[in-house]
Amino acid sequence: MPIYKAPVDDTLFILNDVLGIERYNNLPGFSDATPDTIEAIVSEAAKLAEEVLFPLNHTGDQEGCIRKEDGTVSVPKGFKEGYDQYCQGGWIGLAVPEEFGGQGLPYTLHSAVGEYMSSANMALMMYPGLTQGAIAAIVVHGSDEQKKTYLPKMIEGIWSGTMNLTEPHCGTDLGLLRTKAVPQADGSYRISGQKIFISAGEHSMTDNIVHLVLARIEGAPAGTKGISLFIVPKFLVNGDGSLGARNGVTCGAIEHKMGIHGNATCVMNYDEANGYLIGAENKGLSAMFVMMNEARLGVGLQGLSIAEVAYQNAVAYALERLQGRSLSGPKAPDKPADPIIVHPDIRRTLMTIRAFTEAGRAFTLWTALQSDIAHRSADEVERQAADDLLGLMTPILKGVLTDKGFDHAVMAQQVFGGHGYIEEHGMSQYVRDARIAMIYEGANGIQALDLVGRKLALNGGRAVMALFKEIGDFCEENRNDEQMSFYTKGLKKGLNDLQASTMWFMQHAVAKPDNAGAGSTDYMHLFGLVVLGYMWARMAKSAQEGLASGESGREDYLRNKLLTARFYMERIMPETALRKARIEAGAETMMALPADAF
Amino acid sequence: MPIYKAPVDDTLFILNDVLGIERYNNLPGFSDATPDTIEAIVSEAAKLAEEVLFPLNHTGDQEGCIRKEDGTVSVPKGFKEGYDQYCQGGWIGLAVPEEFGGQGLPYTLHSAVGEYMSSANMALMMYPGLTQGAIAAIVVHGSDEQKKTYLPKMIEGIWSGTMNLTEPHCGTDLGLLRTKAVPQADGSYRISGQKIFISAGEHSMTDNIVHLVLARIEGAPAGTKGISLFIVPKFLVNGDGSLGARNGVTCGAIEHKMGIHGNATCVMNYDEANGYLIGAENKGLSAMFVMMNEARLGVGLQGLSIAEVAYQNAVAYALERLQGRSLSGPKAPDKPADPIIVHPDIRRTLMTIRAFTEAGRAFTLWTALQSDIAHRSADEVERQAADDLLGLMTPILKGVLTDKGFDHAVMAQQVFGGHGYIEEHGMSQYVRDARIAMIYEGANGIQALDLVGRKLALNGGRAVMALFKEIGDFCEENRNDEQMSFYTKGLKKGLNDLQASTMWFMQHAVAKPDNAGAGSTDYMHLFGLVVLGYMWARMAKSAQEGLASGESGREDYLRNKLLTARFYMERIMPETALRKARIEAGAETMMALPADAF
Repeated sequence: MPIYKAPVDDTLFILNDVLGIERYNNLPGFSDATPDTIEAIVSEAAKLAEEVLFPLNHTGDQEGCIRKEDGTVSVPKGFKEGYDQYCQGGWIGLAVPEEFGGQGLPYTLHSAVGEYMSSANMALMMYPGLTQGAIAAIVVHGSDEQKKTYLPKMIEGIWSGTMNLTEPHCGTDLGLLRTKAVPQADGSYRISGQKIFISAGEHSMTDNIVHLVLARIEGAPAGTKGISLFIVPKFLVNGDGSLGARNGVTCGAIEHKMGIHGNATCVMNYDEANGYLIGAENKGLSAMFVMMNEARLGVGLQGLSIAEVAYQNAVAYALERLQGRSLSGPKAPDKPADPIIVHPDIRRTLMTIRAFTEAGRAFTLWTALQSDIAHRSADEVERQAADDLLGLMTPILKGVLTDKGFDHAVMAQQVFGGHGYIEEHGMSQYVRDARIAMIYEGANGIQALDLVGRKLALNGGRAVMALFKEIGDFCEENRNDEQMSFYTKGLKKGLNDLQASTMWFMQHAVAKPDNAGAGSTDYMHLFGLVVLGYMWARMAKSAQEGLASGESGREDYLRNKLLTARFYMERIMPETALRKARIEAGAETMMALPADAF
Repeated sequence: MPIYKAPVDDTLFILNDVLGIERYNNLPGFSDATPDTIEAIVSEAAKLAEEVLFPLNHTGDQEGCIRKEDGTVSVPKGFKEGYDQYCQGGWIGLAVPEEFGGQGLPYTLHSAVGEYMSSANMALMMYPGLTQGAIAAIVVHGSDEQKKTYLPKMIEGIWSGTMNLTEPHCGTDLGLLRTKAVPQADGSYRISGQKIFISAGEHSMTDNIVHLVLARIEGAPAGTKGISLFIVPKFLVNGDGSLGARNGVTCGAIEHKMGIHGNATCVMNYDEANGYLIGAENKGLSAMFVMMNEARLGVGLQGLSIAEVAYQNAVAYALERLQGRSLSGPKAPDKPADPIIVHPDIRRTLMTIRAFTEAGRAFTLWTALQSDIAHRSADEVERQAADDLLGLMTPILKGVLTDKGFDHAVMAQQVFGGHGYIEEHGMSQYVRDARIAMIYEGANGIQALDLVGRKLALNGGRAVMALFKEIGDFCEENRNDEQMSFYTKGLKKGLNDLQASTMWFMQHAVAKPDNAGAGSTDYMHLFGLVVLGYMWARMAKSAQEGLASGESGREDYLRNKLLTARFYMERIMPETALRKARIEAGAETMMALPADAF
């Protein structure tokens, strides 16, 4: 039987000890988030995730979604009830401003509980997840009337949302999209075209579905400069907010996918559907990016979530499965064999995952905190610095946490041997589910290109320089602290590789952009290694302080934290040198092969 | 539509140019394998793989196997016909000695064509694959009567074979197995117990299934010293070779797996089934290892096979899919966008896979050649050297080619973006199929342990020392060859890391075996990197010679070979330093965490 227990203690350690979230109580919404409130909220979320959502995960995968002949789509048994409980708990609007009906609590807290939800049931959580993205776009770009019409019901969860970008011939390159919007006399539009890969595109868990659709207004410029964003509700909404006629949008098919079977991935056909412009004409991409940036953080979180639940199951199996004897002599002589957790290679596997998830959790919450500061701080300088960091971290968080999340789900599956390959134990599902996170919301190669091609040089490299300084200062400040020098030494070495590679791009990629493309994925991972290493160094610092304070009850927890930090520096951080070597190899060998010789 | 074209030219380049297979025509069976015969055979195999087996691959995955209430198991549509064509082509017995009804051709050739077959349809090829393993065990350990009774029909393919090792509570640790064998007055045994994960355990493609079953004779010593191997046919065989009564072995269930859906993975129940001892009493493990060693090479080959077919499909997609523009300016200005193969990150992906598959192919054939020499050479010194190398390479080939084969299938899937995640394009199947190869025939952690704990120190390290000398000599001999120095420099650096890590184990793992376990997986991959690098250096040498000879028609092929060799040395080989760093970190951090703290 698969298991899941939300890592509440670890969340609280990061929020309280590492990030010192109390220091931000001058930000709107943060003063309500006292340590006690935070603990109560994450504990409540843990309960929902463990007791309601998780038990639906495996059955949801096995049952999947089915499109019926009439175009309706069924979701797995229990999903509706699970979804309703999530909505009734007010989780959708946790961090949405109170003026729109949300609770206005920190987005950081939303991220903290989001991890648990996706660990428990990624496919089910995608339904409200998409709604949250749509809410973000309407909050920023919607008219007052649109906000009034849509937000309260979406925050309540009785209406859900979707994002409609991809078409059969274009995903990454949205400039190619063909879905068209014809202006009507009343100011609305008629939308026609086909969208594919639309998560949560059709289902009957909610009374209405609010599709946000990218389309091209007749006569608009070609390419990305002629794309607009529209609200296309499944049911038209009357002036009094009640539901009217069925709109001209239908689900033509659902995809048969490798994983996330519990989520309906739809082909959506728009046939002169009524649509309402959101934001300015031809500015659809920037409106969509509000959703996209938030969605990318959410997808990065999914990578972490799946690695965490896969890890927990691998640990449980390793403690229970008896096979072979310890290399240093029997550890369970009364049993026919030792539990496999005695074997170093099993421990290497588990420590590698753990070193990732614990730092990944800190990385996620630290980034979410930047989002809060960027959106809520009264200080413009502070706001700008946080926004810089958020923009820089978004592709890294999405790309690295999902690549590694998948790798680690595979490693956890490996602990089960043959039992990991059969569907019964649930490990296959984690691997299959985790796989999508590397692809959607911008495939990870695109994240790497966003980082290298856009984010690095933005504002003359202001964001990256500030972060290098922050990490460098941290190393410098703790250099003479005997208990910290091991960690800062490892971090500093990684930082040096990162800075050298950044410099290499400046010298070699301006004249020859292929050199940037060729090194982009390695650079993204190099950056991720350093940021996760920075998280480890900060966690080590907090652990040292916790131990020094003599406060009792957490000594073991804090000592294990230091041990895992050491593991990271010894075993994981050296990868920065490899990434640097690959980047400096440049584009030559990979561009030289003629296309038809591949 | 998925595509597959067998890489015949590459196989021939390796066999003829790199390995110089003609030089071995003094070995039995090799004199029949003239260059023309080899070309004819691999071309015939290519045709069968491309035209018969491959078209059944995707449908086989979608349809899967079904166990009916009466305990029979159906295979996907067309599998029986595909299987029959494979058998009728004489492929099962290609390398089996002629005295038993085989063709006695080189095992190297069997490996060469085996790659194509598994690329085309891994799940289907597992049926004869298991038979081949069982044949190997009977050839070595069977009595004359057993050979006469079973081999001809198995080689013909009208009877198939299986391996029955795993039980619910034991896989790796076979010493725990409980299936029992009760001696009968007539010299036979009654076998009772349950085996799980039995590939090709039940189906009706063949008239009989010959199960090779590990069991414990009543009163035998505990642990691995009390295990014997038995032949348990599905139908008893009469004295005249005709089939008799149904034996007491039935399929209790089939597993629902992540992949290889076309292969029936069975729970087999033995209920006082008639069994016949093969080999000596209580020596079952060594008899089983004859199958296992051969099977491990076959499984390593599967890793290569899936990476190859996944690569081919990713290339086709990258040439066709239009998305975005080249960083160095439009390459297809007449089209709405460039094909994605213009993007460096896509090329990085494809080159990485290619650098692996081409070297992996050479590694496989070079290792298979060692098997031929070890089994067929008249020269005892030569035989022993080849057997040393074969034993050393087996865990590396299995572990590295399957780990990397899976990684590269994932990379190829990534090229497809969202289209890779839906089942329609077949990329998901490659990933799901490739995953099992890391697990079965000894999970890769066990391969690493076999390498570090057993193979390294065998005969005072004779095998490893000989190989280090061979690679070192190659570097030395080509050091002053200007055209080779780039490759030998890269190889030498990798070899230095490997030698240093080997030395580190000698110094640190004898007193503390956990240090060996902790570094075992990294060491296996470090070794794999160097061996693949050695293959690249040798291929580069052959390519240089080919170009220097002025023979026309292959210049482009040979130049691309050199380019890919360069890519390997620049981008892949530097990983040896990372592996070395991890090994030298030792076991401390991973053993220190208390088991209950994971």
